[in-house]
Amino acid sequence: MTHLKVFTVSFFIIFLISGCNQEAEKNKPNIVFFFVDDMGWQDTSVPFHTETTKLNKQYYTPNMEQLAREGVKFTQAYASALCSPSRISLMTGMNAARHRVTSWTLRKDVSPDQQNKNIQAPDWNVNGLSAEPNQPRTVYTQTLPQLLKKAGYKTIHAGKAHFGAKDTSGENPLNLGFDVNIAGHAAGGPGSYWAKYNFSADWRSPGNHIWDVPGLEKYHGTDIYLTEALTLEANKAISKAVEEKKPFYLYMSHYAIHAPWEKDNRFYKKYIDAGLSEFDATYASMLEGMDKSLGDIQANLIRLGVDENTVIVFMSDNGAPKQAARNLPLRGHKISPYEGGTRVPMMVKWPGITKPETVNNQYVIIEDIFPSFLEMAGLKEEAGKSIDGISFLPLLAKKGQYPIDRPLYWHFPNTYDQPPYSSVRKGDWKLIYHHTDRKIEVFNLKEDLGEQTDLSETNAAKTKELANLLTEHLIATKAQMPTDKISGKLVEYPIDAFMNKTE
Amino acid sequence: MTHLKVFTVSFFIIFLISGCNQEAEKNKPNIVFFFVDDMGWQDTSVPFHTETTKLNKQYYTPNMEQLAREGVKFTQAYASALCSPSRISLMTGMNAARHRVTSWTLRKDVSPDQQNKNIQAPDWNVNGLSAEPNQPRTVYTQTLPQLLKKAGYKTIHAGKAHFGAKDTSGENPLNLGFDVNIAGHAAGGPGSYWAKYNFSADWRSPGNHIWDVPGLEKYHGTDIYLTEALTLEANKAISKAVEEKKPFYLYMSHYAIHAPWEKDNRFYKKYIDAGLSEFDATYASMLEGMDKSLGDIQANLIRLGVDENTVIVFMSDNGAPKQAARNLPLRGHKISPYEGGTRVPMMVKWPGITKPETVNNQYVIIEDIFPSFLEMAGLKEEAGKSIDGISFLPLLAKKGQYPIDRPLYWHFPNTYDQPPYSSVRKGDWKLIYHHTDRKIEVFNLKEDLGEQTDLSETNAAKTKELANLLTEHLIATKAQMPTDKISGKLVEYPIDAFMNKTE
Repeated sequence: MTHLKVFTVSFFIIFLISGCNQEAEKNKPNIVFFFVDDMGWQDTSVPFHTETTKLNKQYYTPNMEQLAREGVKFTQAYASALCSPSRISLMTGMNAARHRVTSWTLRKDVSPDQQNKNIQAPDWNVNGLSAEPNQPRTVYTQTLPQLLKKAGYKTIHAGKAHFGAKDTSGENPLNLGFDVNIAGHAAGGPGSYWAKYNFSADWRSPGNHIWDVPGLEKYHGTDIYLTEALTLEANKAISKAVEEKKPFYLYMSHYAIHAPWEKDNRFYKKYIDAGLSEFDATYASMLEGMDKSLGDIQANLIRLGVDENTVIVFMSDNGAPKQAARNLPLRGHKISPYEGGTRVPMMVKWPGITKPETVNNQYVIIEDIFPSFLEMAGLKEEAGKSIDGISFLPLLAKKGQYPIDRPLYWHFPNTYDQPPYSSVRKGDWKLIYHHTDRKIEVFNLKEDLGEQTDLSETNAAKTKELANLLTEHLIATKAQMPTDKISGKLVEYPIDAFMNKTE
Repeated sequence: MTHLKVFTVSFFIIFLISGCNQEAEKNKPNIVFFFVDDMGWQDTSVPFHTETTKLNKQYYTPNMEQLAREGVKFTQAYASALCSPSRISLMTGMNAARHRVTSWTLRKDVSPDQQNKNIQAPDWNVNGLSAEPNQPRTVYTQTLPQLLKKAGYKTIHAGKAHFGAKDTSGENPLNLGFDVNIAGHAAGGPGSYWAKYNFSADWRSPGNHIWDVPGLEKYHGTDIYLTEALTLEANKAISKAVEEKKPFYLYMSHYAIHAPWEKDNRFYKKYIDAGLSEFDATYASMLEGMDKSLGDIQANLIRLGVDENTVIVFMSDNGAPKQAARNLPLRGHKISPYEGGTRVPMMVKWPGITKPETVNNQYVIIEDIFPSFLEMAGLKEEAGKSIDGISFLPLLAKKGQYPIDRPLYWHFPNTYDQPPYSSVRKGDWKLIYHHTDRKIEVFNLKEDLGEQTDLSETNAAKTKELANLLTEHLIATKAQMPTDKISGKLVEYPIDAFMNKTE
């Protein structure tokens, strides 16, 4: 077990930048964060597992393959197990336990938590990220685009926002640091991917307009697919930023491949022809549509002559939903505490910095994006901020140091589609604490990626170590625990559950 | 080992307050934080140890004795081992590792770090706390008085400020949330305690005016002692706040008993008559002068009829300086990592909440003041803030829950009068990591309060546990480590030093 020293490279890079300010200003890289919704670790023809799986063979994502050839593939990248927590972590650099947007947001003051006879979820931040301080049930802080904007970036939002609840300041990306907003609002999914239905759910659920994708009226009634419309608009915004000679941050946040699963007709037929079921072909077509977007944006960067000074980071916000088979060889799915819920595809290409066709097996997590992008932009991370993420730049440059044995944490004290839990990964080990029955599971991911063999009883020392670690994190971040309805008390910390069991 | 659940009481109190807002507004307690400088755990006639010591008998602090009879005495309260880190933790709720004001501040961009052939201190926040964001080598956040002011409090600063370096925004308490500033500025000590010398060091160090106490000109040339002048002015400010019918926060931050040690003639003679040395009598007279201030403020509260609605919290900012004998039975002194550096007297009286003559042996630390005072003021702690402190209100009310086994941390990566170190206490155990030689010491404070027997080798499991915990804290708070000049690398984390030694 070794913690390499984390700060050397950060300081080195900061020094370079602050030592030659003008030069740095000129060289600030553009940053494209290509973010896919509900895309599992296996939802691509790029193998993130040690071997190529059945699902890898089923899908066709050539532009992802190209990116893998040109950049670094992270095989152990994590997000939260569902959308809002991931997106708020991305925008704030905070772990979900700290920002308290632990489940998904939509309507003001309304929680999707389901009634549960044993457990009452806490008063989590159901209104999401706020643009103003002191708003009820929100988290407020400087956002990633606000900071990048201060550093001279043009900040472009395209696609799904889902940062704050409807009728709050956080519903509008323009209030949260973005100069441009293409199609983002409170909702976490589109009414429809089809322009023929005006991107609205009204066609299948009359009168339901909360999911209507805003701002793409010019495409209404046409044959275009939402993913394509977003890409066209995003590329226009890139071209404009380049024209303005400003470094840009494009948050290319696709609605795809979140429900509703509606086929992308450009690609659907070939999967049906290949023998896939209707649902699988739909899913595959949506993935390929997303992949085409990645290719189109890269082509635009090349056309504009800025590709050599543009970082591309590809990621998903959680695992594939519901059907566990979609995440094999991983266990579980979106919202669940197992790897299928949290492990996601991630790739990084930074011309001149990353080496082509590299594989990095170090684990990283979504809140790391925040400090990493700040560092790319030459911004020094200020003292005293609640940034739980750690910059992964030392991993890209393959020099300097990084705390490879750092712990990662997840916290879901909610009762939506999944009983509440907290979990921790450190090294090859992972502990899951189930709040409802205080059950603890421990897995060795190196030997048991599928999380089949619970080692909590056979390795009590490791269990205790991880339970302690998770407890300290929950205390330090002031995590909210749910209430046990039977005892009327808050669910105890994992170390107390462990000690109660062994005493 | 048990972590009681921390949140129940906080939620309960918050609920009460938000459930009946007008009532709460009316009942907001006044808060007096009576803060003494460089006062050791033994610098009082109140015994904080299990037995009355020689030093307890040497001093006479009757108003502290009275407070102990009326409130709760905390026998294991901690601060940082020196002034600026403690004061910034108090103002921000952050641990020193996070706020990075790890040594003392005075002149802009000037560090007091001494040359050391082995170790180079990091670029810590030598300019202290800032009133504006993005200022070089400062920390910026919402301060305790800013938040209390928002909650309707009149915020009064009296005495030593020492928050930010000279010629920065943080040098003036009025920029940091105080409505009133009595005698506070950048310097951490007074030029003189004597009004006859205009509270300036000029009489003994001609031309030296950086320590001149500001704003007390009307007392210049008189016979008054600084402690008395501050008390008179503070009492006037209290009276005014009561007249205005506003709840008030008085930060009564005495310069005493920091150097220069100049006798308080009102009390000096009796200690000489009792056979004390000139120095000891001086020290004792300064303590009794400070104690009189405590009595005078309490008398004023009674006179004004607000004593029953006023919380008084008494504390010191670090242990007694230099001469270790002044801290016995504790080892060490101000700036050192041992208990003599960090353990301080603390008492809390909250009429109607605290029980008279109570002793509480739970450990607490200076950053806990921030969330505790917010909770007293009916303020909800917001999600996502970097508050390392934990409210101690559950300990006062003796109901609800508190994570009694939480760890406390100290971090001093500096080279001023003391080699650099980081340390952690959890339960009865304490680990000190000495950066220069990577030496680890482990003590059991319950059995060995004087930290005489290093158990790091005999109890490797405990050593590893604490080294892990301290390492995670340093990573999570993005603590700055010093550089080893010989290797040119950052000093490794404690767990790596431990593993290197045992491998």
